[in-house]
Amino acid sequence: LRLIYEQRARTRFELAQETGLSRSAATLRVDALLRTGLLVEDGATATAGRRATNFSFNMGAGCILAADIGVNRTKTTVTDLAGRPLAVLEDEIDIARGPSEVLGRVKARFREHIADTGFAPDDVWGIGIAAPGPVEFATGKPIEPPTMPGWDDFDIRGWFRSAYACPVIVDQDTNVMALGEQRASWRDADPFLLVRIDYGIGAGIVTGGTIYRGAQGAAGDIGHLRLRGYKEMPCRCGNVGCVEAAAGGWALIRDLNAEGFSLSSTEDLIRLLSSGNVEAARHLRSAGRVLGEAVAAAVNILNPSVVAIGGPLAHIQADLLAGIRETLYQRSLPLATRHLHVVTASRDETIQVAGMAMLVADHVTSARGLDERLAKRTEPTLRNTAVPGALE
Amino acid sequence: LRLIYEQRARTRFELAQETGLSRSAATLRVDALLRTGLLVEDGATATAGRRATNFSFNMGAGCILAADIGVNRTKTTVTDLAGRPLAVLEDEIDIARGPSEVLGRVKARFREHIADTGFAPDDVWGIGIAAPGPVEFATGKPIEPPTMPGWDDFDIRGWFRSAYACPVIVDQDTNVMALGEQRASWRDADPFLLVRIDYGIGAGIVTGGTIYRGAQGAAGDIGHLRLRGYKEMPCRCGNVGCVEAAAGGWALIRDLNAEGFSLSSTEDLIRLLSSGNVEAARHLRSAGRVLGEAVAAAVNILNPSVVAIGGPLAHIQADLLAGIRETLYQRSLPLATRHLHVVTASRDETIQVAGMAMLVADHVTSARGLDERLAKRTEPTLRNTAVPGALE
Repeated sequence: LRLIYEQRARTRFELAQETGLSRSAATLRVDALLRTGLLVEDGATATAGRRATNFSFNMGAGCILAADIGVNRTKTTVTDLAGRPLAVLEDEIDIARGPSEVLGRVKARFREHIADTGFAPDDVWGIGIAAPGPVEFATGKPIEPPTMPGWDDFDIRGWFRSAYACPVIVDQDTNVMALGEQRASWRDADPFLLVRIDYGIGAGIVTGGTIYRGAQGAAGDIGHLRLRGYKEMPCRCGNVGCVEAAAGGWALIRDLNAEGFSLSSTEDLIRLLSSGNVEAARHLRSAGRVLGEAVAAAVNILNPSVVAIGGPLAHIQADLLAGIRETLYQRSLPLATRHLHVVTASRDETIQVAGMAMLVADHVTSARGLDERLAKRTEPTLRNTAVPGALE
Repeated sequence: LRLIYEQRARTRFELAQETGLSRSAATLRVDALLRTGLLVEDGATATAGRRATNFSFNMGAGCILAADIGVNRTKTTVTDLAGRPLAVLEDEIDIARGPSEVLGRVKARFREHIADTGFAPDDVWGIGIAAPGPVEFATGKPIEPPTMPGWDDFDIRGWFRSAYACPVIVDQDTNVMALGEQRASWRDADPFLLVRIDYGIGAGIVTGGTIYRGAQGAAGDIGHLRLRGYKEMPCRCGNVGCVEAAAGGWALIRDLNAEGFSLSSTEDLIRLLSSGNVEAARHLRSAGRVLGEAVAAAVNILNPSVVAIGGPLAHIQADLLAGIRETLYQRSLPLATRHLHVVTASRDETIQVAGMAMLVADHVTSARGLDERLAKRTEPTLRNTAVPGALE
């Protein structure tokens, strides 16, 4: 199955060659996999006068469910096993309502998704949940997330385990946004750095085709660097002088409210900026210079080949990017910047939930993921022909 | 050969199983490899009453040459194919004498090394050169290296190609120091960050068992971050406010000389510090606090599991490490520091040249490296039994 998934073998003959199985044993195995629906016939090739049936992995044999939990709204999707979305739904819900209520809504949406696409709960191969705060990747638990009151140490995986007997992956939203963006637009960029400017500031790193997470999943935290070149302000993390406290959405809201505005959310801020307000534009330009310092620090340490600036505040004004570039090229050594591209990320608001599904797809179709999935199945035909280790 | 190198197969029977070759074909291939000297017999196992000869990869079938070019001295080594040093030599030579003279000395030492160990030039599988400045990894050329006058864009690989027909790898010294240190003392640490305090300040990152280099090989440049928490001074890179300009060896020398000392090298500085001078100790403590800010920034971005502080200035005074820890735990988010170890690196001065040899060993014994090496050999016995792709 793995050989066919990786397109290293397409026919019974190629399978026999690659595995060292006899032709007839390979045929038995293919027949068993065809019965499970994991393989499908996919045309034929004529080689040396003989016709051989081609097989391919059936990306529709199961589905993946993913959610992107935002501060004010949550998106959910159902995708095929390649991570290609079949549907996306969006709900307005405040993350401060806590995990039971927010995840309850997600669970209801997941039920709708699988009903709408004709899948059964058993067809769900994996679930992915993206959260807007630090997540300990090994346990899937948010750790003291500043934007997620009531979520600290909550067992998100356990919450879904009662309804679905499949792997549940929890990751920080900036990580999966970086993965989605890199796969969609910058497949050759390695390393790829995505910087996200929203209510807070974060970054995701993709290298070797996968997310760089560090030891606990905390990598890419550029929002709490303490750099020069801007006014030092108290941060919501408890420190002073963090990048976010000068350039995050919440900091811009704080500063504009001090000047007489009454903004209460990133949406309010975006509306004000989009209306062409001069004060707001001045604050965003100055945020761009602060971000330039932060991106320069990340470039010095990571030496990425592409830096994409994303998030809702990245698409309003062209000189945000100009400000970032100006500071960056001034602050980093030539070797790190001579071939560096600094670009604006795509405007696609479903890139996070799509990236989350791709991460789950990578996991469930890995050699280990396929093994685990096959081990769970109870079809006697497959059991009878299985040879230990040989399906890997 | 690869299967045996990776210890996935030890006997003819296991080889036949893993490759899908017949027992007799496997025997032919083993005999051919035995004749080349790449395999050696290594005892026997008795399984189910039958004795089977074990084979192992012959780490002595060739050698690796490596040099660590320092600002004032250069170390060279000859190792086996596992990167284990057979001998190390040291030369006092100023890097400012330029590439021809310094590399000429290295070449002469390499000749001595292989003569002393009984190898022929053809037995050299790979060469590694570590340099104390930014190196573009793809081309092996130093790029505007501040500590290496006359070396900018010099073709180090080409220089060795006339004498040795083997791969030549050039890397920055902090990278191979990180690799050597991680392999020697912190094999389970991932990611591993090594910070080096010397005349300049740099860092090397090891993740997934190998060096994280970034797009051009410039990753880990923490010396030119511009952080808060110290006096902003002009840096040798042309910017102001770099970490190195406040806490590097050259900056300490500058500050102490301004107070009436007349130091001219890191060695002078180390002598002064070791003598217990109070002024010098005060400067080193303040350097520790600056380094703490730099390590905190790197921890926020990389989330390593171990940070080792190395280089000649790391071993003089215990409160350097205390100063780093204090700032670090204050500046980084709990998720990134809750399991973080901050330690002093080993005092082993050959760790860089050993790390350089390990990097070359990884390359020449990789699947591709072994293929390239075998393709070069002309033994007809091996050629006749080779099946395309099957030796991989």
